Parts: sequence; structure tokens; C-alpha cells
Amino acid sequence: MTLVKAYAAPAADQPLAPYTFERREPGADDVEIKILYCGVCHSDIHTARNEWGGTVYPAVPGHEIVGTVTRVGNDVSRFKVGQTVGVGCFVDSCMHCANCEKDLEQYCENGNTQTYNALSQDKKTITKGGYSSHIVVKEHFVLSVSDKLPLANVAPLLCAGITTYSPMRHWGVKAGHKVGVVGLGGLGHMAVKIAASFGAEVTMLSRSESKRNDAAELGAKNFVLTTDKEQMKSVARTFDFIIDTVSAEHDYNEYLNLLTTDGVMILVGAPPKPLPVSAFALIMERRSLVASLVGGLKETQEMLDYCAEHNITSDVEVISIDQINEAYERTLAADVKYRFVIDMSTLK
Amino acid sequence: MTLVKAYAAPAADQPLAPYTFERREPGADDVEIKILYCGVCHSDIHTARNEWGGTVYPAVPGHEIVGTVTRVGNDVSRFKVGQTVGVGCFVDSCMHCANCEKDLEQYCENGNTQTYNALSQDKKTITKGGYSSHIVVKEHFVLSVSDKLPLANVAPLLCAGITTYSPMRHWGVKAGHKVGVVGLGGLGHMAVKIAASFGAEVTMLSRSESKRNDAAELGAKNFVLTTDKEQMKSVARTFDFIIDTVSAEHDYNEYLNLLTTDGVMILVGAPPKPLPVSAFALIMERRSLVASLVGGLKETQEMLDYCAEHNITSDVEVISIDQINEAYERTLAADVKYRFVIDMSTLK
Repeated sequence: MTLVKAYAAPAADQPLAPYTFERREPGADDVEIKILYCGVCHSDIHTARNEWGGTVYPAVPGHEIVGTVTRVGNDVSRFKVGQTVGVGCFVDSCMHCANCEKDLEQYCENGNTQTYNALSQDKKTITKGGYSSHIVVKEHFVLSVSDKLPLANVAPLLCAGITTYSPMRHWGVKAGHKVGVVGLGGLGHMAVKIAASFGAEVTMLSRSESKRNDAAELGAKNFVLTTDKEQMKSVARTFDFIIDTVSAEHDYNEYLNLLTTDGVMILVGAPPKPLPVSAFALIMERRSLVASLVGGLKETQEMLDYCAEHNITSDVEVISIDQINEAYERTLAADVKYRFVIDMSTLK
Repeated sequence: MTLVKAYAAPAADQPLAPYTFERREPGADDVEIKILYCGVCHSDIHTARNEWGGTVYPAVPGHEIVGTVTRVGNDVSRFKVGQTVGVGCFVDSCMHCANCEKDLEQYCENGNTQTYNALSQDKKTITKGGYSSHIVVKEHFVLSVSDKLPLANVAPLLCAGITTYSPMRHWGVKAGHKVGVVGLGGLGHMAVKIAASFGAEVTMLSRSESKRNDAAELGAKNFVLTTDKEQMKSVARTFDFIIDTVSAEHDYNEYLNLLTTDGVMILVGAPPKPLPVSAFALIMERRSLVASLVGGLKETQEMLDYCAEHNITSDVEVISIDQINEAYERTLAADVKYRFVIDMSTLK
């Protein structure tokens, strides 16, 4: 076992604090990674504070991981020591169910193992995430990261990037499509960049006029202030897709009505409680309300390669790990453009 | 103008009663039809009682029409006097918008004209439906009906048939798929028959054990009593499609959770108020919640031809028109297998 430094939530109502624990020695198919950067995702906060229930303490969050390979097992063929790699939202799965065989490990029928606060496939260990100096991950779940891009900015691609890229690919966002993006946070800013890179005409749908310039800089061609009924009316039945990144309670139907015939509204935010959907809003234009969960390993690698090729990364604010509790508060206040990323060299 | 006998709702709170009105003489592209049978759809009741608002009285419902051509205009090429034809839920549209040009007249961007209680394209006349001796309809909106099938049983195909056929074709229900059907009424029994005819394995999802045998006779291979938690659990994550035909308030999420990865839940019932949808239920298996509205003319003809070829019709109870008010009450009490159809020869 290897002793690893980390930051952990000791309990739901306590701030994250330094913590030390043991990771397994890399097995034959494992890759050991020295973590360089770890993004701060809203899920980290939900878990640290037990807002989804089931948190096992001390909890070490973090699933937007970029690092350097330090050791590899004997059977590892895709990675070597010194290589730059990434780890996303899960680190293992059954590897043999119908979904795993279709490169959809995120929907593993036997339950995959998320990167933190999840039961390992050995059904004993609880996983600990990227707010730590090292991580040991089965080769299949390790991604190759190009050195061309600034690594701090790459980290959020492992969750926010793939979460928006995957459904847009799956439901077929293409050049010429009109795409509305609801909410300009970690997910929203990636949705704008990726949709624009696909050649779609992107419209930012926001409650806040202050987002207009930021959205334009990210690649949004149009801006609609959603609190203005006239502006909303002017875009009724116009979007081929809407990417809804908002986790707070809001009115889905207001956005469904902006979709054209056969339009698709993709939920990537996850409001904690079910929200009302009007059957008529779907029926009248044969609309779809859909959602998806991150992406499989094959598609995540495709996304990383695509982003390297098209020079797409996340806009981030790099912090030292002792700023993590403050970063949580600022994330909750939406006071970040657009993702905090921890410089893990600050973990001493 | 031609004087036409009919039954109409004189006001929201009054029973339907005999009524006479004038229809236009057939124009160059019109077909005049003597109505033989007219199905009784739940929408008829909503309109007669002004439950959706906007009813103009006297209101003549009826949009599941089968009849015989009595006159044709000079430019009519597809129909001749004596031919058996059908008319469904709409009788006109702009004919030139993007949707009309894609054979999706049901989503006409300029607003199509529904068969009853709708503004004609002349923006003057309010349409009157099939509870009448004759109807005059533009050729494009008239469908050819095979004489091979019993015509009373064909009538409901024009609404209940196409409403279930169209989304199953659009979203790709095929042989080998597992399809759950929620609710066994006018729409539900057509969904079971059509899905089974496609080669899908159909499961009836019902709150009532009494539906078990009926569902089996219609072609459902399996039956799940939805009030039994163990039975529901046993089919979790198993259906490729669920066709939800229920208009009453119910829990969508309970059914969404029965869908497999990439499963699609198709709403064809329209609950009057928006119902809660859990983003997690969609996210966790990349599920879709979708809905559609009847079908375009081209697809409705395809459906009628398909049903003639595969000997599919609606199970109906034929009534005389003076039984219409009683039929409404029995429809509301779900006391019909599965659709009332008016024998229009009883309209004297």
C-alpha cells in the first residue's frame, strides 16, 4: 500500500481538511498517476455534504483529474511512465455486460464504480477521488491527454466536457443547427464552446443580462434574456436543440416551447426533485426531452482528442487546495468563470 | 350550400342534440362524403364540454370518419363517386410551410385546420365534424379506405390508430423490441395490436387485473399489474419502448424506470396538467420522453394500407346517434371495449 496525501470532508457539516490514506499498489492492469490538477465539480459538493445521501466519511471528492503516470502494471500496454493522462467520473465497471461491451460503461448494468464515494468492484473498498496526491486506476479507465493544451484547463473536460459533448454527439448536433444553451456555468460554458465548434448557431438563454458578453466571447452568436417575455416569444419554435444545464428548479415547458418540430431538449443539469412537464409541449411539435450521463471511455477519449485538435478547453480559475472550502462557497454562489481547478502541487 | 343533418353540443353543460347546418358546395379540389361511421374520441367530449376552452357552439364533434364519396370537384384526381374514404383529425393546412412540404401537416407552421371546432383556412368558418350526414373536404386531406375491412372498425384508425402507429414508426419500434403499453382503452388497445403486428413483444401495464385476458387476446404476451411493487420491480430496465396512453394524472417516473438504456417513453395520452419528471430517471440510462400528434396524410394512408394488409382494426361497440350522450358517460367511465362508433345511418 502507498500512503497518499489528500483533502477530505470529515463529515457532512464540516469543511474539507488535510487527510492521509492508503491506496493499493498498482496491479498488473493498473496505472498509478501523480495528480497535477483536479477540477471542482458541483457533484463534489453534493457528496461532501451528503446532499444525495450515502456519503461515507472521510470523503475525498474529485473526478476531473489530470496527471502524470508514475508506475504501470505488467499488463498495461497503452501507457508508460511520464505520460500525461486523465481520469473522469468512474474508475471501474463489470467490463462484460451489454452496455460495457458497447463502450457505454457509464450505464454498466452491474453498476460501475464512480471515482469517489463508490463501492469498488471488489465490493469492499470505497473509492477516493482526485483531491489527493496519487490515484491508482485500471488501465481501461485511464485516458490519454494531449500535452498541447494547458493541463489545468483540460481537467474539467473529464466531467463538464464529456457531459455536454456526449449527448450533443448522440442526438446529432451538427453544423447549421440552432442550439440554445440554458445557464452559463461549468457545464453551460462547455456546451457553448462545443456546440459552436460543431458549427451550430448557439444562443445563450440566460436570466442575467450580465452574461451577454461572456457568452459571445465563448462562441454564442445570440443572447436571449429569459425573463423578457417578448424576447422569449421571438425565439418560440426556433431551436433544433436546447442544452439545459441548470440544476436549480425551473420551468422546463418554457424551454420546450422554444423547440422547433422534432426539437430535442437535453438535460445535463439534474434538479434534485422532479419538475413538471407538459405533455402538450411535447405532443404539439413531436419534441423530445432527453438526458444522458457523462460518456463511455471510448467517447471520452474521442472528446479529449477532438478538444486537443480544436483547441477547446475549459475556462478555469486555478486555486491552491487550502482554498477548496472557499471555492465551494463561490461555486454555490456561481462566482467563478467557469470552473475551479485545484493545482495539486499545493498539497504538501 | 347543402343542408346537413348532425348532432351538436348546444353548450358546454348541455347534452348533444339534433342540429342542422349548411356545408359548402364542393369546390374544384373538394370531395363530398356521405358519412357511414364516425368514431367517438375522448377529444370529442373535451370539446363538447369546453374542457380545453375555446369551443364555439353549437359544436359538432367527430374526427374518425369513414364514408362514401358522393361528389368530387373538377380537379379531384384520386377519388371518384362511390369510393370508400376516410377523414381524420384535420381537414386543411397551409400546404406550403416546411412541415407541410415534409408531409407533416399535423405540425403545419401556419396552423392546420382541425376537423371540428377549428378555424378554416379562409379564417371565417368554424369546422364541424363527423357527427353529421355529409362532410366536404379538400382532396389532399381525404384518405383511401380498403373495402376489405369492416368499416365501423376502421373508423377509429383515423385517430386512435394513427396516434399510436406514427410514433412507433418514427421512433423505430421493430421486431424483437420489448414494448410496454400503459392503459388499455381506445389508444391502448390499438397500441397493443400495432406493436404486436410489428413483431414486438408487448407487455400490458395496467392497474387492473381484469385487463389481463383482454390484453392477451389483443396480442400482449405479458401482463404487469402496476399496483404490485414486486411485479414492477421485476420489469425494471427491461423495455425498449413504453407507450403511455393514460390521460389521467399518473407518475411518469415509475414507468421511465422500466426503460432499458436508450429506452423511449412515448406519451400519446395528454394529461391536462404538467406532471413531474425526474431528470435522474432520464439521465441514468440515457432515456427519452417524447410525444407526437396523430400523423400526416402520407403516413395516415400508409397506416390504413398497413392495417388492411395485416387485418388490423379497432374493437368497437356500434351505437346509434341518439345514444351519443350515454356513450360519452360510458367513455368517461372506461366502460367500452374499446371505442364507440356511431352508425351514421341512424341519423334521420
